[in-house]
Amino acid sequence: MFKTKVTELLDIQYPIIQGGMMWISRAELTSAVSNAGGLGIMTALSFSSGKELAAEIKKTRHMTKKPFGVNISLLPTFRKIDYDDYIDTIIGEGVSVVETAGNNPERFVRKLKAAGVKIIHKCTTVRHARKAETLGCDIISIDGYECAGHPGEDDVGGLVLIPATANAVKIPIIGSGGFCDARGLVAALALGADGVNMGTRFMLTKESPVHPTIKEWILQFTERDTLLLLRAFRNTERVIRTPSSEKALEMERKGATIEELRPLIAGTTGQSMLQHGNINEGIVTAGQCMGLIDNVLSVKEVIDTIIADAEKVINNRLVGFLKN
Amino acid sequence: MFKTKVTELLDIQYPIIQGGMMWISRAELTSAVSNAGGLGIMTALSFSSGKELAAEIKKTRHMTKKPFGVNISLLPTFRKIDYDDYIDTIIGEGVSVVETAGNNPERFVRKLKAAGVKIIHKCTTVRHARKAETLGCDIISIDGYECAGHPGEDDVGGLVLIPATANAVKIPIIGSGGFCDARGLVAALALGADGVNMGTRFMLTKESPVHPTIKEWILQFTERDTLLLLRAFRNTERVIRTPSSEKALEMERKGATIEELRPLIAGTTGQSMLQHGNINEGIVTAGQCMGLIDNVLSVKEVIDTIIADAEKVINNRLVGFLKN
Repeated sequence: MFKTKVTELLDIQYPIIQGGMMWISRAELTSAVSNAGGLGIMTALSFSSGKELAAEIKKTRHMTKKPFGVNISLLPTFRKIDYDDYIDTIIGEGVSVVETAGNNPERFVRKLKAAGVKIIHKCTTVRHARKAETLGCDIISIDGYECAGHPGEDDVGGLVLIPATANAVKIPIIGSGGFCDARGLVAALALGADGVNMGTRFMLTKESPVHPTIKEWILQFTERDTLLLLRAFRNTERVIRTPSSEKALEMERKGATIEELRPLIAGTTGQSMLQHGNINEGIVTAGQCMGLIDNVLSVKEVIDTIIADAEKVINNRLVGFLKN
Repeated sequence: MFKTKVTELLDIQYPIIQGGMMWISRAELTSAVSNAGGLGIMTALSFSSGKELAAEIKKTRHMTKKPFGVNISLLPTFRKIDYDDYIDTIIGEGVSVVETAGNNPERFVRKLKAAGVKIIHKCTTVRHARKAETLGCDIISIDGYECAGHPGEDDVGGLVLIPATANAVKIPIIGSGGFCDARGLVAALALGADGVNMGTRFMLTKESPVHPTIKEWILQFTERDTLLLLRAFRNTERVIRTPSSEKALEMERKGATIEELRPLIAGTTGQSMLQHGNINEGIVTAGQCMGLIDNVLSVKEVIDTIIADAEKVINNRLVGFLKN
C-alpha cells in the first residue's frame, strides 16, 4: 500500500505521475502507467486539434479502465493554439485530471472545475504555486532545476524548491525534476511532496514510442550531459548536450534571434529524431536523472520496482538509522 | 539515537556536519556544533599561518571534548598558501578529521592517513568522488548545485548528484548543498547519503560570529536570491544577489579580468562586511536554502530540532504512507 493525499485525490494506487512529454505521451504509454497504478498523462499539444486528441483519449480508454490525465502546455509555441478546443474536448470526453503548465491557467480553471475536472498545475516557482492555489487548482506539481524540458528561470534545485513550496501552499504537491527511482520518491515525500512526477524515466520504457536506437543512445549519457537553451528568451529548456544543442547554444550566446534558432530547436525535428532513430537529426530534452537510468524496462517493472524499493528505503534504511 | 556509517566513522552522535565557512568557522561555532552532537569544522585558511590555526585548535579543545575537524580548501586563492604548514599543524595538534575541498587532495592524503587522520573529501562531481575513494579518503561530501560557495561547473542538483555518487563509490557519503532542516536530512539519507553538511544554516545561529545585522538581513532573502559568479574562470561561486554581486556579474559578462574583479570579490571585503554589519560593503556567499531559514537559533536548538523532526518525518510521515 502507498496512500498519500495525491493518491487519494487522483484515485490512484501509487504516488507516481508520468510527466507529459510532447510526441511521447500517447495512448500506449499513458495507459501503461495508469494500468500499473500510477497516473498516465498524455499531452494535448501532440495533437493538431481537439478532434485528434479526442480520438487518442478514446483509444486510451480502450486500453485502461483507470484514471489518466491530459497535459496542456501554456508555454510559448511556434504554432497558434486554440486552447478552448482542447479544453472542451477534455471535458467532453470526461477526462478526470488536467495538468496545466508553463503559464497562468486562470482562463481555463473555472470551466474545468465546473466540469469536475481536477487540476494539477505544474510550475517552477513558489509564487506561481501560491497563485495556482488561489485560483482553485487541486495539486501543485513543482518542477525543480534538474528537470527535463522547462525548468523556468530561477534555477532552484528540488531539494530547496519542494520544501519551499510545501511551506507556501496548503494543497498537496508533487515533486518534479530529477526523479526516477525509489530513493528519489522517498526523498520527495520527506521533503513535503505527496508524490513524484517522472518524465525521462518513462521515456526510457518499453511502452514509450521513442525509437529503440534513441533509448539506447540516451542510456549512455550521464547527469552532466544536459545543457540549457533559450535562457536569453526566458523560455529555458533543458536538452541533451549534443553537437546540435551546443551549436544552438553558441548561436544563442552570439545573439541569434528565435527565428534563426527555429530550424535547430523546432519540436518537429526532435519528434522525427525520436520516431526514426537518427541521433544526429535534432535536439531532444531529457533531465539530469539520465545519469541514474541504465536500463529500458516495462512501465510495470519501473513502477513495481520503485514501490518495492521505496518500502525498503523507509522500513529498513531510514527506520534502521533510528533503531541502532 | 541516530546511527549511520558517518556517525560511526566520525564518532559523533548525529549525522550532521557543519560546513567549513571562511572567517565564520572558528572555535565558538565549531565547538558548539560538536558539543551539540554534530561535527564542527573550522577552516584552516581563515588563519594566516599554521601557528595561528594551532592557537584556534587549542582554544576549541578547551571548549569541547568531542571530535571536530579542520577544512582545507585547495581552491585557487589570491594569496599563496603554504599547505604543508597547515597540514603539519593539524597532525601535530591531534585533530581527528580533515575536510579537503576544491581540488585533488592526493599530495596530502598519505601524510594525513599515516597520522591516523580521517579524511572527508568534499567535491562536486562523481568522477572526483571516485578519484578521492581511490586515493584512500574515508568519506565523500558531495556538494550539489544548491550549495553556498563553490558548486563546481557541472550544475547537477543534489537530488541527482547524491544518488549518482552513491552508485559510484563504496565509502560513505555526506550530502551537501541545500540542507538546513529535518526534511532535507531525511531526503539525503533516502538518496543514499549517511549524513548532511550544512553551512548557511549554521551561519545563521547565535554562535556564528557573523554580525547580527547581517544575520537578520540574510533571513529576508528567498531561495531565488543567489547568483553564480566567476563561471567564466571555472571557479564558480554562489553568492547572495545584491547590487554588488550583480555589478560583478555584469563586469564578468563583459569580459572583466580576475584582477579587475578582485576589489569586488576579494574575501577580505566579505569578511569585513560579516564582522561589521555593513550590508553594502561586500559580497557574501549563501546557499539556496536561505529561502527555508527564517530564524536565528542556537546551534543546539538547530540540531535538536532537526533530529526530533527527522524522527517524526521517518516514523510518522513516511511509515504512515505505507500503513494506510
